[in-house]
Amino acid sequence: MQLGLIGLGKMGGNMRERIRRAGHTVLGYDRNPEVSDVKSLAELVEKLDAPRTLWVMVPAGTATQTVIDELGDLLEPGDTVVDGGNSRWTDDEKHAAALAIKGIGFVDAGVSGGVWGLQNGYALMVGGDKENVDRLQPIFEALKPEGPYGYVHAGRVGAGHFSKMVHNGIEYAMMQAYAEGWELLEKVHSVENVREVYRSWQEGTVIRSWLLDLAVNALDEDEHLVKLKGYAEDSGEGRWTVEAAIDNAVPLPAITASLFARFASRQDDSPQMKMIAALRNQFGGHAVESKTE
Amino acid sequence: MQLGLIGLGKMGGNMRERIRRAGHTVLGYDRNPEVSDVKSLAELVEKLDAPRTLWVMVPAGTATQTVIDELGDLLEPGDTVVDGGNSRWTDDEKHAAALAIKGIGFVDAGVSGGVWGLQNGYALMVGGDKENVDRLQPIFEALKPEGPYGYVHAGRVGAGHFSKMVHNGIEYAMMQAYAEGWELLEKVHSVENVREVYRSWQEGTVIRSWLLDLAVNALDEDEHLVKLKGYAEDSGEGRWTVEAAIDNAVPLPAITASLFARFASRQDDSPQMKMIAALRNQFGGHAVESKTE
Amino acid sequence: MQLGLIGLGKMGGNMRERIRRAGHTVLGYDRNPEVSDVKSLAELVEKLDAPRTLWVMVPAGTATQTVIDELGDLLEPGDTVVDGGNSRWTDDEKHAAALAIKGIGFVDAGVSGGVWGLQNGYALMVGGDKENVDRLQPIFEALKPEGPYGYVHAGRVGAGHFSKMVHNGIEYAMMQAYAEGWELLEKVHSVENVREVYRSWQEGTVIRSWLLDLAVNALDEDEHLVKLKGYAEDSGEGRWTVEAAIDNAVPLPAITASLFARFASRQDDSPQMKMIAALRNQFGGHAVESKTE
Amino acid sequence: MQLGLIGLGKMGGNMRERIRRAGHTVLGYDRNPEVSDVKSLAELVEKLDAPRTLWVMVPAGTATQTVIDELGDLLEPGDTVVDGGNSRWTDDEKHAAALAIKGIGFVDAGVSGGVWGLQNGYALMVGGDKENVDRLQPIFEALKPEGPYGYVHAGRVGAGHFSKMVHNGIEYAMMQAYAEGWELLEKVHSVENVREVYRSWQEGTVIRSWLLDLAVNALDEDEHLVKLKGYAEDSGEGRWTVEAAIDNAVPLPAITASLFARFASRQDDSPQMKMIAALRNQFGGHAVESKTE
Repeated sequence: MQLGLIGLGKMGGNMRERIRRAGHTVLGYDRNPEVSDVKSLAELVEKLDAPRTLWVMVPAGTATQTVIDELGDLLEPGDTVVDGGNSRWTDDEKHAAALAIKGIGFVDAGVSGGVWGLQNGYALMVGGDKENVDRLQPIFEALKPEGPYGYVHAGRVGAGHFSKMVHNGIEYAMMQAYAEGWELLEKVHSVENVREVYRSWQEGTVIRSWLLDLAVNALDEDEHLVKLKGYAEDSGEGRWTVEAAIDNAVPLPAITASLFARFASRQDDSPQMKMIAALRNQFGGHAVESKTE
Repeated sequence: MQLGLIGLGKMGGNMRERIRRAGHTVLGYDRNPEVSDVKSLAELVEKLDAPRTLWVMVPAGTATQTVIDELGDLLEPGDTVVDGGNSRWTDDEKHAAALAIKGIGFVDAGVSGGVWGLQNGYALMVGGDKENVDRLQPIFEALKPEGPYGYVHAGRVGAGHFSKMVHNGIEYAMMQAYAEGWELLEKVHSVENVREVYRSWQEGTVIRSWLLDLAVNALDEDEHLVKLKGYAEDSGEGRWTVEAAIDNAVPLPAITASLFARFASRQDDSPQMKMIAALRNQFGGHAVESKTE
Repeated sequence: MQLGLIGLGKMGGNMRERIRRAGHTVLGYDRNPEVSDVKSLAELVEKLDAPRTLWVMVPAGTATQTVIDELGDLLEPGDTVVDGGNSRWTDDEKHAAALAIKGIGFVDAGVSGGVWGLQNGYALMVGGDKENVDRLQPIFEALKPEGPYGYVHAGRVGAGHFSKMVHNGIEYAMMQAYAEGWELLEKVHSVENVREVYRSWQEGTVIRSWLLDLAVNALDEDEHLVKLKGYAEDSGEGRWTVEAAIDNAVPLPAITASLFARFASRQDDSPQMKMIAALRNQFGGHAVESKTE
Repeated sequence: MQLGLIGLGKMGGNMRERIRRAGHTVLGYDRNPEVSDVKSLAELVEKLDAPRTLWVMVPAGTATQTVIDELGDLLEPGDTVVDGGNSRWTDDEKHAAALAIKGIGFVDAGVSGGVWGLQNGYALMVGGDKENVDRLQPIFEALKPEGPYGYVHAGRVGAGHFSKMVHNGIEYAMMQAYAEGWELLEKVHSVENVREVYRSWQEGTVIRSWLLDLAVNALDEDEHLVKLKGYAEDSGEGRWTVEAAIDNAVPLPAITASLFARFASRQDDSPQMKMIAALRNQFGGHAVESKTE
């Protein structure tokens, strides 16, 4: 099968390689001419046979919007656009509607796998009409891990990114779970070998997981994590998960607590705790005069 | 009425004064001879007429335990001990049982009011048998604020301290509420007069309260709280509230969140967020080898 | 001063009355002819002298949008629109920009006070340019409570609704605080008079507040709240507060916990707890075959 | 090696079998004569050669306390007691101290593995002096899973149960993470195949784990979990984890949220949400008269 792939960064570049290894033809376009197979989006579209499939793998937001707008002008009825970036699910319907007016199909694909994807395959969560999704099966087969897992047609347009977003929300809370447990164990004097406790959990326990393996790797590199600051960014998908929960009146206490812990980790000094300190000072007996006295 | 008062610190000293102003006889004992009316607990007991009432106002834990043990040896059947300190409610039953063996009554009293108590009165939450509590009414009347509020016979032994503990738990979450709102308002550029927003809330709103008055006082002293660090101690009663909730399988999400926010405020660097950072680094593409790969 | 007031429901009707009592001229328009002073928006605008002030007091969202659009067509340069409804602050900038093109001013006003407002006054949080806000002072003076509190010019357009929104977020957490404390006290056998404990807190304590007064009123009507279901709606402003926090990376654990508690209260059966139950069943020894074994 | 095993329930019985399969001699005692190898604790002790090792596998609390007290009377200096039950770590030091007076060693062992343990091995987290722990290595080797994982000497007495407790705390939050994500996906209409989304995550994703495998098993049995009630017990170790966190001033927001979600799931009607409803009713305009008005 023939594919146009737009965006050849760390993810896109490896995906091009993995799809090619599976025997497909991939033409890649990137603004960086050193990695690009063509000079422009227009050239990319021109070199592909209709009906074309264009996989967009650029940063979510403006960059993705721009590419999809341009593709809307360049493509023909019957072509299909796949957004494989980290777009917010709410963008998917807009993109699908805008392209549908021109007879162009749209599929959203949440992609997980990071740096191990080239070798182990990428987990794919896909949203869109059955017809469009079915036509893309050879590419999905090439990208996904071997075996029965790692690919799902989750539902309608938006369902792919929505599922990937929830995946990341779950990831936040799982990471927080291991992090909370680690801090508690490190704090207690009777437990002398926290790293070895974590290592031991990798077999025979309820909490064994790939994230636990990563935690053990991290502790092997730096047993008490003294080289790291307790500072954690968030990528947007945790925020969107909480926003989706609010939209749907679903309580997400653990995932939200994990997001808030990251927010707090990035503050040098907590404004809200200044207010707590201020109120405690007021109790302490300064000569305050309060309105209601 | 005649009262022996043990512990003449900031709270006890003012309470002695307020009870005396109400026309009662108070003999105070403190280890500090400069404020003490007698030289020893034994002398205090000796100078009071039976049946005696001894009000203990010393730090919770060992100090209170020691005084109550000594009183158990010095007092006679028919006497009554009041624990007005910040004891954990679980201690009350033990104290009551130990004294009951000797025919000595026990009442626990949670006392709120701080530095304003001398002038405005102390809120009292009392636990114990009706007979013992009734006998103490003149003292409670002297201590409490004027008007119909500020005193309650909450229930059996322990109910006074339990109620005071829950009062403090609620206080934690209310302080946290004002603190969270303040941080959010300070963060948003369109809101230019956060202090004045808080001041305006003191009338006509749903959230007007004495704590809000204190917040406004604090902002009047230091509009953006730049002189304070976002660091907050906790006094024990917040912790006990959460422990009581766990014992009773009652979910307390807001109060517990407020307690945890204080814990976090005292950490220079968060160990658990180091682990989050470590896991994120592992994603980032270090050449890790995980067990399950 | 002359004012056009659009929306004469429970809030708007009482506000018209309070402004009139202060000696101002209020022409009210409502779709319900029984309460309306004029037959149409057009008539309302026609009957007011330029520069006009139109206060919109209709439900947030579509209704407010429609009225503001119509006013944009009817009004003249130099007129001013006030949105006093519960609009989301993000709508204010859009409204201000759309009206500014036509030379019409815009002010947003968060209004608190409910059914007591007519008698006690309404707390007002106002956003907009100084010039527009200043011109409206007589109306604000008429609406607000007596005394130095209850009115603030919070900042630029949007700041009024933003402040009101945060007020409501704080309200959620304060209500949750009293609710958590009440449940814990009711659960513990030693505390026999929970209602009286709450009543006693109304004086001399740190947590005295208007909301506490309401809680006591509620307990006086129904001591153990047996007539009520543990079911709580949310009005939107709590959700917006959390969304604003996420936008600004501000952790709001107590307010968010309070919002989630309401979501959960409306579920007959919790889907997420079904999954917890399902996982526990899997542990229990069904002959499961798991992928990683 | 020779071992006395006390408590032959589901766990103990399978452990006896697994240790025997490894070639060791196990004498088991249970109050149920049908499964017991001896008639009494005394007979068990008598039949073992000194220095003896007695592994206690009975319910935590009173049952464990009783057995350890009896063993204290029956055993000789140089013997060792292992507590493999789910005891609270705070009991371990007491047990160790009481036995040490008589020259008897003590080791605590947290055991994970449930019904799969017989076949796959039990994860073991062990606390105690190196000398005592080393002597027990053959038994630990027999019980643990094959390979380099599943066993750790975590630290001093108490460290085994403490580590197991934290393991369970982490488990609570991980289960909650998958549960929250599942509810959100089920709620959103665009996602049509939630079960298949979960299945797909079993390979190539960040959140793959054994618990995820169990979730998929559960969904295969009952796709929308319609046969289950959203009701979840808790076993005590989640509570202890939060209590340990409070003792050590460690914030555990995600684990605690998970515990509270279980508490709430067991309430037919939430008392705290009744109070929220009551307060909302008070707003609604009943003719209330509040203290501060």
